[in-house]
Amino acid sequence: MIVQSSNSESTICAVATAPGGALGIIRISGPEALSIVGSICRCITTTTPANTVHFTHIVDDADIIDEVLVSIFRAPHSYTGEDCVEISCHGSHYILNKVLEILVQRGCRIAEPGEFTKRAYLNGKMDLSQAEAVADLIAAHSKASHYIALSQMRGRFSDELHDLRDHLLHLTSLLELELDFADHEELEFADRTELLTLAQAIDRRVSQLADSFHTGNALKNGIPVAIVGAPNVGKSTLLNALVGEERAIVSDIQGTTRDAIEDTIQLGGITFRFIDTAGIRHTDDCIEQLGIERTFAAIERASVVMWLIDKEPDDDEITGMRDRCAGKTLLIVQNKIDKDNGRCDIADLTLSAKYGKGLDDLRERLIAAAPKTSDTDVIVTNARHYEALCRAHDSLTRVIDGLTSSLPSDLIAEDLRLTLTSLADITGGAITPQETLNNIFSHFCVGK
Amino acid sequence: MIVQSSNSESTICAVATAPGGALGIIRISGPEALSIVGSICRCITTTTPANTVHFTHIVDDADIIDEVLVSIFRAPHSYTGEDCVEISCHGSHYILNKVLEILVQRGCRIAEPGEFTKRAYLNGKMDLSQAEAVADLIAAHSKASHYIALSQMRGRFSDELHDLRDHLLHLTSLLELELDFADHEELEFADRTELLTLAQAIDRRVSQLADSFHTGNALKNGIPVAIVGAPNVGKSTLLNALVGEERAIVSDIQGTTRDAIEDTIQLGGITFRFIDTAGIRHTDDCIEQLGIERTFAAIERASVVMWLIDKEPDDDEITGMRDRCAGKTLLIVQNKIDKDNGRCDIADLTLSAKYGKGLDDLRERLIAAAPKTSDTDVIVTNARHYEALCRAHDSLTRVIDGLTSSLPSDLIAEDLRLTLTSLADITGGAITPQETLNNIFSHFCVGK
Repeated sequence: MIVQSSNSESTICAVATAPGGALGIIRISGPEALSIVGSICRCITTTTPANTVHFTHIVDDADIIDEVLVSIFRAPHSYTGEDCVEISCHGSHYILNKVLEILVQRGCRIAEPGEFTKRAYLNGKMDLSQAEAVADLIAAHSKASHYIALSQMRGRFSDELHDLRDHLLHLTSLLELELDFADHEELEFADRTELLTLAQAIDRRVSQLADSFHTGNALKNGIPVAIVGAPNVGKSTLLNALVGEERAIVSDIQGTTRDAIEDTIQLGGITFRFIDTAGIRHTDDCIEQLGIERTFAAIERASVVMWLIDKEPDDDEITGMRDRCAGKTLLIVQNKIDKDNGRCDIADLTLSAKYGKGLDDLRERLIAAAPKTSDTDVIVTNARHYEALCRAHDSLTRVIDGLTSSLPSDLIAEDLRLTLTSLADITGGAITPQETLNNIFSHFCVGK
Repeated sequence: MIVQSSNSESTICAVATAPGGALGIIRISGPEALSIVGSICRCITTTTPANTVHFTHIVDDADIIDEVLVSIFRAPHSYTGEDCVEISCHGSHYILNKVLEILVQRGCRIAEPGEFTKRAYLNGKMDLSQAEAVADLIAAHSKASHYIALSQMRGRFSDELHDLRDHLLHLTSLLELELDFADHEELEFADRTELLTLAQAIDRRVSQLADSFHTGNALKNGIPVAIVGAPNVGKSTLLNALVGEERAIVSDIQGTTRDAIEDTIQLGGITFRFIDTAGIRHTDDCIEQLGIERTFAAIERASVVMWLIDKEPDDDEITGMRDRCAGKTLLIVQNKIDKDNGRCDIADLTLSAKYGKGLDDLRERLIAAAPKTSDTDVIVTNARHYEALCRAHDSLTRVIDGLTSSLPSDLIAEDLRLTLTSLADITGGAITPQETLNNIFSHFCVGK
């Protein structure tokens, strides 16, 4: 659905690769892409066939700038839907900047971040949720976040939303039928069982999608794991052993770890984000006290709490920790088994962080604690989408209430329209405010 | 000239772009390039036409890894001279590593640094001096160094060497004619005027090329400029003003600058490499003394010496500095003109580093002090080439001595052969030892 027209006046260019490699790619998109590139590459003309690659030179008047590969794409069969050219140069700063400079002299404009993808959206090559998935895909660092971003980019989420839209339109037409019926037969309240069943089914799916944001967010940004326990029980040593690098300062002095340090590891294709925290103990030291408050805050933010112990905690402690971790996965981990302190009854597993014993067992427990998703699940990872789904759920709740409480059809129809609008916001099918678009695309890389 | 055969058993792959961009390129080269890529991209087969680009997916069994552009090149019309494929993916670490992993599973080997260019050399796509220029081109950060690297990559230097080789072969054949003549006519010493003229002409060109290394090295690595002068005369302030950033620590305390800090700027397309030095003064402080020794060492290394003064130096100082700077460009620069100290007689130019006055004049003087090159000059920038040219000059000197001192032709012929070998070492026309090749290509980027 094309809702805004692209700025067809301008041809944009940008370096799409990070600086410093053997090769660098410059992308050009817009109506003048071929003629501008043709003016600096002798073998390229406005009639060069699409989907061909050419070994040629970039020339600036008589000066040769580089030997390059030029790939030609033609509207509408290109990433942006416009005529596009990709120039693969040698990756020197000098060359890439020089080529950009020449392109600008010949009439290109330097692209804004995400402007290629924005044009792809404006030209109907992808909807807004697919465009947002492009940035997620580039940022994805784990198998799970990559899978979700790719499936969203390929339209799985959009398909779901189109399905929901079809059902909502069907519900609306049934409601209109009721309105007609009411007008002609003077029967105000028709049998609404079918409509209610349909509305409830739609709401279940919308709620499922909204609920998946909790999982999606954890998979995208990493599952937050708080490592807590008494001072000197080996929390930093355990984190170091897991992360495999000396990222946290380890010390024998009690209360050394005052700042929450975050570190991530990949286990079973999932990112775990560790929150190292100050030791929990009663203290008069106010900085240390701050550390303990942070520990409680870390537990608050965590999905998984690893409680590290080296001796049996008393019952009060156990009760306190269980209360604090309600609704989270609590793993009670006994450290320092190398010291022959005997196994604690309460421990879920035992290990020696210092000697790296029992770590595989811990890794398996962490993977088991991660939210499960199947390949067929659509997972929402974007806060904007989550917020739109919540709005859709709110208006659907009013629809359901209206249907059960025999509200007039026209009031119910209004909430159905709101639901449709909320869902359309996700894919950008309705008129999307320029501000929203700018906000979305300004977070992209340049050149994408 | 193909002198070593490429390892035709292996198909190599590497990421050719720096990590962290919107896009990333994976290069594949070797006999199995098309079949391996075909096994993970459904639309690619071993019969896909050369020089075409395809929008497709990378699949690992059933899993889609990314939507990509695949460019096809076929032997011998490719960079390496082998079948080549370039995959343009989204630039995430996860995707690039995953695609490499799949390629290796399907039979590729991860390329060594410079291995693509090494194969291009081994397959006769370029000679050794051209291959070395590829690395220089990627590293070039100024117009001058870019121009020299590009012209060397495009074979300007190689053409010169081929010309010299032709002349040397002509000289050799004339000498052989003399040998024949000597055998048949019993005349030991023919008229060698023509031979001598030819040898001298060749040696002049070889010497010119060798001499150009001084300029070439300065243009490639930056022209070394030493900023020297009494403590507190404003050397660091001047460097900061020129570089435009606070890279050197500026302080009012005498003798603050103890470490030589190097910084570069681009002026008129040329890189200048500044060497900031400790103040020159008599001192008992041994660290400070070390600083002064470094200053003298910096002058030794510099092509241009900027002597910063704020009052008229005494005659001994001037004589001492002129002696020390013999053969270099000495610029006597009076700083702090804002303080109304009056103009020093000796000063070449005056400025205020603090208030940025007179800096343009200084910049012009620096550009004027840079070695001049014309577009038609071949400039040698590579120490290996310089060393080979020196060897060629040495053996040519013996040829000239032999011709003037009426040495027998067969002894002269031996030195001519040595000259030819030395020049051939540059382009790799003779058998180049594996060690030399490894040394050259190990300094390349991965993926090139």
